[in-house]
Amino acid sequence: MVHSKAAVADGNGRFSIQTLEVAAPQGDEVLVQIKAAGICHTDWDSQSWGKPLVMGHEGAGIVTHIGPEVTSLLPGDKVMLNWAIPCHKCFQCQEGNQHICEVNSPVTAGNKASGGHATLSSTLLDGQPIERAFSLGTMSEYTLVREAACVKITVDMPFSSAAIVGCGVMTGYGSVVNAAKVKTGSSVVVLGTGGVGLNVIQGARIAGAAKIIAVDINPLRLEMAKEYGATDTVLADKADKGLMQAAQTVKSMTNGRGADYAFECTAIPELGAAPLAMVRNAGVACQVSGIEQEITIDMNLFEWDKVYINPLYGKARPQIDFPILQQLYAKGDLILDKMVTKTYALDQLGEAFADMHAGRNAKGVIVF
Amino acid sequence: MVHSKAAVADGNGRFSIQTLEVAAPQGDEVLVQIKAAGICHTDWDSQSWGKPLVMGHEGAGIVTHIGPEVTSLLPGDKVMLNWAIPCHKCFQCQEGNQHICEVNSPVTAGNKASGGHATLSSTLLDGQPIERAFSLGTMSEYTLVREAACVKITVDMPFSSAAIVGCGVMTGYGSVVNAAKVKTGSSVVVLGTGGVGLNVIQGARIAGAAKIIAVDINPLRLEMAKEYGATDTVLADKADKGLMQAAQTVKSMTNGRGADYAFECTAIPELGAAPLAMVRNAGVACQVSGIEQEITIDMNLFEWDKVYINPLYGKARPQIDFPILQQLYAKGDLILDKMVTKTYALDQLGEAFADMHAGRNAKGVIVF
Amino acid sequence: MVHSKAAVADGNGRFSIQTLEVAAPQGDEVLVQIKAAGICHTDWDSQSWGKPLVMGHEGAGIVTHIGPEVTSLLPGDKVMLNWAIPCHKCFQCQEGNQHICEVNSPVTAGNKASGGHATLSSTLLDGQPIERAFSLGTMSEYTLVREAACVKITVDMPFSSAAIVGCGVMTGYGSVVNAAKVKTGSSVVVLGTGGVGLNVIQGARIAGAAKIIAVDINPLRLEMAKEYGATDTVLADKADKGLMQAAQTVKSMTNGRGADYAFECTAIPELGAAPLAMVRNAGVACQVSGIEQEITIDMNLFEWDKVYINPLYGKARPQIDFPILQQLYAKGDLILDKMVTKTYALDQLGEAFADMHAGRNAKGVIVF
Amino acid sequence: MVHSKAAVADGNGRFSIQTLEVAAPQGDEVLVQIKAAGICHTDWDSQSWGKPLVMGHEGAGIVTHIGPEVTSLLPGDKVMLNWAIPCHKCFQCQEGNQHICEVNSPVTAGNKASGGHATLSSTLLDGQPIERAFSLGTMSEYTLVREAACVKITVDMPFSSAAIVGCGVMTGYGSVVNAAKVKTGSSVVVLGTGGVGLNVIQGARIAGAAKIIAVDINPLRLEMAKEYGATDTVLADKADKGLMQAAQTVKSMTNGRGADYAFECTAIPELGAAPLAMVRNAGVACQVSGIEQEITIDMNLFEWDKVYINPLYGKARPQIDFPILQQLYAKGDLILDKMVTKTYALDQLGEAFADMHAGRNAKGVIVF
Ligand SMILES: [Zn+2]
Ligand SMILES: [Zn+2]
Ligand SMILES: [Zn+2]
Ligand SMILES: [Zn+2]
Ligand SMILES: [Zn+2]
Ligand SMILES: [Zn+2]
Ligand SMILES: [Zn+2]
Ligand SMILES: [Zn+2]
Repeated sequence: MVHSKAAVADGNGRFSIQTLEVAAPQGDEVLVQIKAAGICHTDWDSQSWGKPLVMGHEGAGIVTHIGPEVTSLLPGDKVMLNWAIPCHKCFQCQEGNQHICEVNSPVTAGNKASGGHATLSSTLLDGQPIERAFSLGTMSEYTLVREAACVKITVDMPFSSAAIVGCGVMTGYGSVVNAAKVKTGSSVVVLGTGGVGLNVIQGARIAGAAKIIAVDINPLRLEMAKEYGATDTVLADKADKGLMQAAQTVKSMTNGRGADYAFECTAIPELGAAPLAMVRNAGVACQVSGIEQEITIDMNLFEWDKVYINPLYGKARPQIDFPILQQLYAKGDLILDKMVTKTYALDQLGEAFADMHAGRNAKGVIVF
Repeated sequence: MVHSKAAVADGNGRFSIQTLEVAAPQGDEVLVQIKAAGICHTDWDSQSWGKPLVMGHEGAGIVTHIGPEVTSLLPGDKVMLNWAIPCHKCFQCQEGNQHICEVNSPVTAGNKASGGHATLSSTLLDGQPIERAFSLGTMSEYTLVREAACVKITVDMPFSSAAIVGCGVMTGYGSVVNAAKVKTGSSVVVLGTGGVGLNVIQGARIAGAAKIIAVDINPLRLEMAKEYGATDTVLADKADKGLMQAAQTVKSMTNGRGADYAFECTAIPELGAAPLAMVRNAGVACQVSGIEQEITIDMNLFEWDKVYINPLYGKARPQIDFPILQQLYAKGDLILDKMVTKTYALDQLGEAFADMHAGRNAKGVIVF
Repeated sequence: MVHSKAAVADGNGRFSIQTLEVAAPQGDEVLVQIKAAGICHTDWDSQSWGKPLVMGHEGAGIVTHIGPEVTSLLPGDKVMLNWAIPCHKCFQCQEGNQHICEVNSPVTAGNKASGGHATLSSTLLDGQPIERAFSLGTMSEYTLVREAACVKITVDMPFSSAAIVGCGVMTGYGSVVNAAKVKTGSSVVVLGTGGVGLNVIQGARIAGAAKIIAVDINPLRLEMAKEYGATDTVLADKADKGLMQAAQTVKSMTNGRGADYAFECTAIPELGAAPLAMVRNAGVACQVSGIEQEITIDMNLFEWDKVYINPLYGKARPQIDFPILQQLYAKGDLILDKMVTKTYALDQLGEAFADMHAGRNAKGVIVF
Repeated sequence: MVHSKAAVADGNGRFSIQTLEVAAPQGDEVLVQIKAAGICHTDWDSQSWGKPLVMGHEGAGIVTHIGPEVTSLLPGDKVMLNWAIPCHKCFQCQEGNQHICEVNSPVTAGNKASGGHATLSSTLLDGQPIERAFSLGTMSEYTLVREAACVKITVDMPFSSAAIVGCGVMTGYGSVVNAAKVKTGSSVVVLGTGGVGLNVIQGARIAGAAKIIAVDINPLRLEMAKEYGATDTVLADKADKGLMQAAQTVKSMTNGRGADYAFECTAIPELGAAPLAMVRNAGVACQVSGIEQEITIDMNLFEWDKVYINPLYGKARPQIDFPILQQLYAKGDLILDKMVTKTYALDQLGEAFADMHAGRNAKGVIVF
């Protein structure tokens, strides 16, 4: 048993720093000493999910203990964490859709601990079991996870960079490469250049898109977009409903036809159908930001023959994709270090949230 | 020049039988003596398109004269007509999307004569040029079309059967085989068992779907659906908003998961998102009926990882697909003859429309 | 522990009927009472693999006991067996290639017990552990296998039919549907109409191939081919080297161009490249029969743009594919019962081999 | 009519510089003033094709006159030439295989003028019609070609760079992107780092391959390979039959498994099957160099589940792919200028051939 300082959500919109007791790993469980934990909007939201939670779903660290059934890891291994934690045996895992594992996904399971969670009673707060966000709970000095939540780090990479791979980087890159399967030489539009948008942009750059058009209402973000691979930018007007004017500009930049692919990364419900307006007939519109509201859609936007997809987590197969992301980083293609704009101590989580809401960071990371 | 009796729309909701003068073919044009012309809802609508039109977009007949540049047809050839009339050279044709040809499509061109139309001034009504619906105008004893509108009939097939291939049959079969690419052994749901729905069903049967679930509010149509290949049926309730109850029934029939594919063939705008509710995570929802209204969609329906497609005309490549449809008919796999419930003389078009609106026919066909 | 009468190969070309002692299942193991075991040429070969073996790699039966980690089966369940026995976690399993599992495949492992084998020491002959062929050893009253070797039978199907699914049926069907991905409406050539060839033919029929041309030197087999779905036949001449004359005939039947797909199912090394001669430019040639010799190939045969594939076991993912094969059987599409030409008692294995070598059976099956 | 100095092959292994008379364009023909013509081994070979030929199949220049049916070009347009010259209407063009057009391909047509050739009698030598190599004959001050042989140059690019796009660059890039469809993040082996090999390497780099292993027996070429994108190199031994030792080295660099893709670019017949030895189970082996001899192949190399492809001309669709290559050049991704090691006057063709045979150039180009 170890004591572990952690950020704990109360379920009613607040968090506090508490000390947990974490038991030794059983079965295929792994105890990881967290060295860095990424912060994203989902963490903020997780304060209000109606139940106490160990916060954090992005992280990297060092294995300290392993359960008796663990076969691929040893104490001392550096690991990056993923929240797909695939079971490998269900229908969706067999279909290659490990990110929507029918047994372990924290997302398809709804708001309850999924099969991917380590023994609930092995993490205690005030003597009571407490659930870990996304079966990970990375904003904690130690976390107890399933073996399938860990991918070994085999390249030279700071923990703060490793920590962010497992959410926005995978989501952006994977939406391009695994989901939309952007063809080399094609044209791509990216709506919204926040953290995920930048990773869509660099995914498109790595995949060899010939034209990458970033669209945002913030000129500073558009400048940043160029550093990640945007070849062109469109400064949108806040008053441009559904981005219809921006769509005209995009068309004028793509032979009057529209782009081959468009990715929606704004998390603005009204823009759920906007990527359809950006692509040519038979193009692919990809909604990345997880819009879940009811919205009104002009069905003409689907015409003609457009394909609309809505991938979760970049269709991550962590044991396949994370090593590739490590290789692309080592090769110099995948930008990570620069994306970590600022690091914080766990005690500074409040400040980190404030910076995030002010849009001051590409990505903030808590380091331990 | 030939005289040709034809059904002519006045643009204001009415039609009349008139006599046209049709000139000899120029360039790559072909003069076809129509032997049969299918009737569908689009023909009814075409009465109100704000301009006079020679009606009809489904047909088959015999080539009587060819223009000097025609290379693939001779007088006496039997042909079935298509309204894609691809140019073969534009971007979309090169991409394999002949059905949305950037030059010739009557649909992507909007409500004006597209590049696929034969010389406008070669069809005269009262001495004035008149446009042909979908560049075909098949409800006419003779029609002047481009060579690419014709596919030779090389199997033994009645003209009345050949006439219907070029619209609903191609759309249904192609939505399954070309667009959704239904995998052999998979499960398929079809919403709506009208003419196109029945062809989706038989497309799925030919493609080897293991389970084909037909959904309709009309029990008689469900019986008919079985003749075309449905293995299971769900009688939906008219009050079942968005078919959410039917979706539960479908899930119970598909391991609680939902089908691999769902096809919307109802032409009811409110059901535009219904196929999403029928498919499993990462399944394919295909909207076939051409919904073009604004509708409200719960974006949760796209989760998780569902694919939404909206193919036109079954992604027809007529010179590739129509000969295959002929082969499948000759082999006994594709049902056509039985689908032609009733034939009419041109003078009986009014009666034919009445039967269509009353739902009395699988398909009505005018014979000459 | 149960006593089990079994056919045992001596490794030097002979077999005998012996009595084994089989221990209770451990871990994820399952004890299956075999009701039927298919016989194929591999069984004959397995007599000469240099070591004693419990023979048989095709089988179906009833679960009698389960190990403590078994989650998907109960005693009394009817099961069909597969020899892929995927681990679900290795690179190839994650890629969807369960049939070449890096841990469990009996084929990629070479001639030694793979990870898919149940505890070796739990099957004893004369007190010594004995290996089971393909980790199954189905020619035995009882066999101890891993859970992943079993797929539950959920439709009404005789055990003798179930027994043959797990080898030639899966290989033939899967080569068409999973490997070559034959498109509905296309043309297919099948070289050799033995057991696997017939299953390729029926796979192509179920997938909706418009033309299925069977090629063989035996006119009786060609007649049988028609029952399984061949639309056309070519009687080849034994003197036709590389089937070059047959290829000309095939071309004349396919617009002078060649078929879209060709499958080699002859097990004649000299014909390894023959399917290339049968297909059109950019067509797919599929070698199904497992040729492993050195052969001379005219590289012109690959031109232009032909694709050559060599799938093992029809790219079987047993837990996905076997239930589909059951559904297709229940639906009447997959022919199984008729394929079992003759059944034998275990004591008649010698006679069964003799019938097989004489070509008297589509498929012989031992029943218990 | 213009006079045009040209390199003319005599069909018996020699060439000479002659003056042609070239007539004005008819129909869809275009008269191009050649500014640069690439030189490759095929040009050397073309001296011995048994008939007189205007040499050269790679070129770029300026349109000077157009035929009455030309719609996409005007005099003054800069163009790069392609030898696919697709008809757009045949079966293969409709299938997206314009590079093996059934009407116009100079390759599938065998050694005779194909449908892609401009009017034969419009190019005269000593008053007699003379054929142009690959329907282009670019080693000539002027060439008369079909409109479909021309792609407009719309970016800033030297003619000498434009001239080489239409053969080795397209072949290398297209083999990666269009044929093998290399997935971003995967591993690639390239056997042979001549002109085409370097373009395969840069194609793989642009497509985002994480590991690109170049294999050659020449250490200087391996250094050059790194400039084009190789991440690793293997210096092969000339005595390494079938590159079996190199294959072991490649495996040790790819988790012991083999690469995802291997491209054979050596033009050494004995290495026709070598890429199979380099790839993992279910990997893709691509023969790029056009081996047409009879060779002996150990069929075990195809196991397990390897895919062997043999694309021509990188599956070029010139009007789609050449503009993309222009964009990738303008973006700085596609290296062209540096690849043109040396330029020559037409009179120096003999010297250029000598340099080519000595391996002194990445690529030699004749400039006018
Ligand atoms: Zn799973
Ligand atoms: Zn996150
Ligand atoms: Zn077109
Ligand atoms: Zn219609
Ligand atoms: Zn495995
Ligand atoms: Zn077998
Ligand atoms: Zn062509
Ligand atoms: Zn060349």
